[in-house]
Amino acid sequence: MGNIHGHSFRITTFGESHGPALGVIIDGCPPRVPFDAAFLRSELDRRRPGQSALTTQRKEADAPEVLSGVSADGLTLGSPIAIVIRNGDQRPQAYAEMKAAYRPSHADFTYDAKYGIRAVEGGGRSSARETAARVAAGAVAKTVLRHACGARIIAWVESVGEVRMPAAAKAPTLKQVEATPTRCPHPATAAKIDALIRDARADGDSVGGVICCVIENLPAGLGSPVFDRFEADLAKAMLSLPATKGFEIGSGFAGTALRGSAHNDEFVRKGGRIRTATNRSGGTQGGITNGEDVVFRIAFKPTATVLKPQKTVRPDGKATELSAKGRHDPCVLPRAVPIVEAMAALVAVDHWIRDRGQNAPFGRCGRKA
Amino acid sequence: MGNIHGHSFRITTFGESHGPALGVIIDGCPPRVPFDAAFLRSELDRRRPGQSALTTQRKEADAPEVLSGVSADGLTLGSPIAIVIRNGDQRPQAYAEMKAAYRPSHADFTYDAKYGIRAVEGGGRSSARETAARVAAGAVAKTVLRHACGARIIAWVESVGEVRMPAAAKAPTLKQVEATPTRCPHPATAAKIDALIRDARADGDSVGGVICCVIENLPAGLGSPVFDRFEADLAKAMLSLPATKGFEIGSGFAGTALRGSAHNDEFVRKGGRIRTATNRSGGTQGGITNGEDVVFRIAFKPTATVLKPQKTVRPDGKATELSAKGRHDPCVLPRAVPIVEAMAALVAVDHWIRDRGQNAPFGRCGRKA
Amino acid sequence: MGNIHGHSFRITTFGESHGPALGVIIDGCPPRVPFDAAFLRSELDRRRPGQSALTTQRKEADAPEVLSGVSADGLTLGSPIAIVIRNGDQRPQAYAEMKAAYRPSHADFTYDAKYGIRAVEGGGRSSARETAARVAAGAVAKTVLRHACGARIIAWVESVGEVRMPAAAKAPTLKQVEATPTRCPHPATAAKIDALIRDARADGDSVGGVICCVIENLPAGLGSPVFDRFEADLAKAMLSLPATKGFEIGSGFAGTALRGSAHNDEFVRKGGRIRTATNRSGGTQGGITNGEDVVFRIAFKPTATVLKPQKTVRPDGKATELSAKGRHDPCVLPRAVPIVEAMAALVAVDHWIRDRGQNAPFGRCGRKA
Amino acid sequence: MGNIHGHSFRITTFGESHGPALGVIIDGCPPRVPFDAAFLRSELDRRRPGQSALTTQRKEADAPEVLSGVSADGLTLGSPIAIVIRNGDQRPQAYAEMKAAYRPSHADFTYDAKYGIRAVEGGGRSSARETAARVAAGAVAKTVLRHACGARIIAWVESVGEVRMPAAAKAPTLKQVEATPTRCPHPATAAKIDALIRDARADGDSVGGVICCVIENLPAGLGSPVFDRFEADLAKAMLSLPATKGFEIGSGFAGTALRGSAHNDEFVRKGGRIRTATNRSGGTQGGITNGEDVVFRIAFKPTATVLKPQKTVRPDGKATELSAKGRHDPCVLPRAVPIVEAMAALVAVDHWIRDRGQNAPFGRCGRKA
Repeated sequence: MGNIHGHSFRITTFGESHGPALGVIIDGCPPRVPFDAAFLRSELDRRRPGQSALTTQRKEADAPEVLSGVSADGLTLGSPIAIVIRNGDQRPQAYAEMKAAYRPSHADFTYDAKYGIRAVEGGGRSSARETAARVAAGAVAKTVLRHACGARIIAWVESVGEVRMPAAAKAPTLKQVEATPTRCPHPATAAKIDALIRDARADGDSVGGVICCVIENLPAGLGSPVFDRFEADLAKAMLSLPATKGFEIGSGFAGTALRGSAHNDEFVRKGGRIRTATNRSGGTQGGITNGEDVVFRIAFKPTATVLKPQKTVRPDGKATELSAKGRHDPCVLPRAVPIVEAMAALVAVDHWIRDRGQNAPFGRCGRKA
Repeated sequence: MGNIHGHSFRITTFGESHGPALGVIIDGCPPRVPFDAAFLRSELDRRRPGQSALTTQRKEADAPEVLSGVSADGLTLGSPIAIVIRNGDQRPQAYAEMKAAYRPSHADFTYDAKYGIRAVEGGGRSSARETAARVAAGAVAKTVLRHACGARIIAWVESVGEVRMPAAAKAPTLKQVEATPTRCPHPATAAKIDALIRDARADGDSVGGVICCVIENLPAGLGSPVFDRFEADLAKAMLSLPATKGFEIGSGFAGTALRGSAHNDEFVRKGGRIRTATNRSGGTQGGITNGEDVVFRIAFKPTATVLKPQKTVRPDGKATELSAKGRHDPCVLPRAVPIVEAMAALVAVDHWIRDRGQNAPFGRCGRKA
Repeated sequence: MGNIHGHSFRITTFGESHGPALGVIIDGCPPRVPFDAAFLRSELDRRRPGQSALTTQRKEADAPEVLSGVSADGLTLGSPIAIVIRNGDQRPQAYAEMKAAYRPSHADFTYDAKYGIRAVEGGGRSSARETAARVAAGAVAKTVLRHACGARIIAWVESVGEVRMPAAAKAPTLKQVEATPTRCPHPATAAKIDALIRDARADGDSVGGVICCVIENLPAGLGSPVFDRFEADLAKAMLSLPATKGFEIGSGFAGTALRGSAHNDEFVRKGGRIRTATNRSGGTQGGITNGEDVVFRIAFKPTATVLKPQKTVRPDGKATELSAKGRHDPCVLPRAVPIVEAMAALVAVDHWIRDRGQNAPFGRCGRKA
Repeated sequence: MGNIHGHSFRITTFGESHGPALGVIIDGCPPRVPFDAAFLRSELDRRRPGQSALTTQRKEADAPEVLSGVSADGLTLGSPIAIVIRNGDQRPQAYAEMKAAYRPSHADFTYDAKYGIRAVEGGGRSSARETAARVAAGAVAKTVLRHACGARIIAWVESVGEVRMPAAAKAPTLKQVEATPTRCPHPATAAKIDALIRDARADGDSVGGVICCVIENLPAGLGSPVFDRFEADLAKAMLSLPATKGFEIGSGFAGTALRGSAHNDEFVRKGGRIRTATNRSGGTQGGITNGEDVVFRIAFKPTATVLKPQKTVRPDGKATELSAKGRHDPCVLPRAVPIVEAMAALVAVDHWIRDRGQNAPFGRCGRKA
């Protein structure tokens, strides 16, 4: 269980890290939306490893095959969209160690505890590889959002280790984010992060960091007041990503130090709309979007795979020492940027569909034609 | 939509802040569990306002009525358990202001944006009042967990404003938490927090803070590797609470500054079980519990209701000024402690049931005695 | 589990037959719909027993209390609508027999097999009493449907035992259905059915029959092609009613004897719309409504409670004989009519909301006025 | 929406009739179950068309590719099992007619009404082709059921047109069912059915019929008393199949003519278990299995595709005449037998997992090892 996400725009993913393929079925996609195959490929390329010296050298072609749900002339049909991505460059022999000992802070032990069995090659479902299916689905979600309400999503690396970029007044552009392999849009900080990651790699070690993400141009009214608050679904989506340890929206943990009178966002009229003068709320109030930018941050721990020797135990409980020899990604942050965006898009499109199903005015929402 | 929580232990809540009643239906509760009515009342009492000078003075009896699901001799029947709590002490006149102007950082505006209508008395569903239903359901969840696997849950106030208690080696006892109205188990810090809250109240202002929560004695194997990671469901549950702005598990945001070699939790054999030497993971690895304490923190913003005058707009967009006159809770943290525990219990019992449904060995799990 | 129905208009029910109360929470109701409290009461009155010599003499006031989800001026708020109905006239002593022996074709044995415990008074959840909550929810669903798309639902008793009314060209009116306690709109047949039921009652026996139901004026396009076909969800809803043994739509079982060329519904243009010349499909094609009347039938077995002595066993397996002494409903058909309508309304409104969430044109469906 | 089935053993299917492929992801499969690839292929072969003169001549290799969820040594991993089946023998040109006119009693019109777009080749999702994914999932479900509780499922053709086999005292064997291409286990009736189908084919016409299905050896206790009754979920599963018009369990529609005293199933002690002397209930009481055979029937209408000329309209409403020239299956009944079994298996395994999750005794159900 647990491989289905969303209520009305619902995705189901599959695929072991070193099995034949991984993929996703999207159920509930609105019909008549131009399917953007080039965008799908470019999003997958953004996630793909092996693009720079900063990431794992695993070679993955990540060529998506769309098996259903799109008409001959490139429109969504409203039926399930299945996308499959073949795995290549499998090196199961590099993972023999996984069988012999539980890798610290990996999921080897918990898989055995839960399932009593596991795919010993490459971490099974608990692998960054799994996220390719999310990015594929997220590309479709972004396309739908763009057509439905013009919403845009942009994420970037804000800090790695103790190197943090200065606070910016507004979200960067995609071009600024993609300007360096670090995906930190602040050039001076990007250079420091680049050096930090290279240093960690040279050390056989790894580093973590924080990603910031903004959803712009989302209409007010998405989300709901109790369990399915917009930020609650975002938090779940983000904490469902490998290596995440925290989520905050708007003022987040830092906001807990403010007084209410300093934290509240006053309402103002701007450009004919009701807006807030500040955005410490981070774009939602009472669990519902208020039309301001949705702004949130995600903490990623340093990657668990390090090449330094570590103490651990074997499945039978005997103590042993382990030195990883598999491919090694010293910092997942740059590659996590498109994954964060994908999950944000999936949450947003799901709530967009749910909201108009329940709340659009009767009669206004005439169907078809 | 959005008023149902959980997959296999599923709760549905209802109730406007100033309607006749609020309540919950629990669907999927295991049968034959002793229903602990006294514990239900004591949990609701922990959440109830008006208990000290630190909280809102709203008087609520919070007397739960159990309408179904329990046998004459006090055992759960496996059928839905409905619990209803009547609202008393309604003062709708105190809320006339809500109709006239959007209160900053409240849900007034977003309700209008979403539903095109709202209950103008007391915030509708977006009120701390709503959480009584969660605490009632959480009391049942805690009882089931205790019988099912002996798990215990304890939360406490770690910081308010900039006052933070020192890190503790182990979780406090319930007695230590309940020793002061602040629910901070560190007496010296509790005194400072008490003063801080009184100061904010005197100012007509409010303060936020951080709650820490630990789930002890949960078996390894709960959660799943992809979307329904244990921590993802915790994050959603916590961010579904009013006034929350952040969630972190284990090392959280601070852990992003460590290197992987310093962050990893080495496995050791202890007491015949495989354990980790440290717990930076916070009790889950790969989304699945590893048998260590599940440790997480939640950020609460300062309450939006302040008695100081604030600028805002009316529903028609005209600028106005607002000075709240309703009851005022200068700090939600102490009362949020049992609510956090309740949501944690709901997530844990849901995953406990889901896990054994899928993964328990065939044949071992013979049904009924 | 299993007490929640629907995907986007979702109801959760609770209540043992002889507990303090039963009720329902409706989650996902569109906002701004006039809540029709008088209609709610009249629907519950139609289901209420004790109205004629044909039904059980159990006295139930069935006075619904609406605890949430409706504004002071009587509009739905979009938040959960909770409706509670108190149980009166409990006679647990009349049910002592249930403890001592498994009543044939009742749920006593299966409850013990499943839950290892049961409420021994009155059948627990397996009682016609439970259906009051469905009728309450169905009244709200009918109200929403009427405002949303003008759909109407009407059901009636078509046969009891071997007495069957002649086929009618069109659905009867509510007035025709309510003209006699039998709820058979064909007066001559109604008289025979009345006699048949009285005869069964005099015998301490019971009779079954068939109810026909029509949903008129539903737009084309509701349902979906694979699992959630409109008729599949109707079938589930109907078979979820106590005492049901069968469901058929359109030509049903009789249609299996026709050839395709005689069964197909030819398309014609009528009144500016594309219609079918006949309606053997029963209003759906490929699982999706086609704008014709949705016509279906449900088989109800004779009530399991009979006053004649029956052989059975005790929970310990010892053979015994049982003569029911509880209240006895010789024929559930007349009272099942509003229950069938309620379930049909719940299915229709759920699919109506789901469909426009996914399929309404972008831009046309602007939100809120 | 609507392409996901089940609660705890959950399948998601995809695939247009004439797209590149169709398939299924199974989420929630118990781990450590031997995956039976040969059985998977043989089940797909039973459904595959072109096996006899009685079915459509479409050639489909139906070679399943298992992309995930199975370990190198052939055990289920507990992770999603994805199975993809490539489409071959596509002849889109044969379907040009679909674009020009709405085929009577097909889903062409309702697709346009719902989605405003459709795959004009081969019926999109509304095609018998779609059911291959169900059969693949059903093969896995059957395998799990066999290991979990020894349950077996067998279906067969009971009638075609007006030719009906005599009632049998017990379910036939698989060998008896597979003895003729008709899948009617009564040789004399099978011969008549064979002639009837050939006659309909020669006529360019089609015939319908009834399939009976039995689930043997299912434990008592599966299902639940209200919405998710075992028979309700069966009814939904069966009515979700193409061309179905009715469902009945146990005594079904015929049972409505009996009196309660004649219909009730008396309890007896047999072989150390509590059993019923008769099985008019059809294996469930109060929505919960009672340990007797689950016996149900499904009505299939005559196939909509006939080669005779039919009146219809074009999408613009203009009247036209249509003579199908595509491949033509004069009777779906024989091929529907394995599909019915598959859906029954999916319902049964889902309820088996749900039941032990909620109701198995604490402590007895120790996990793993």
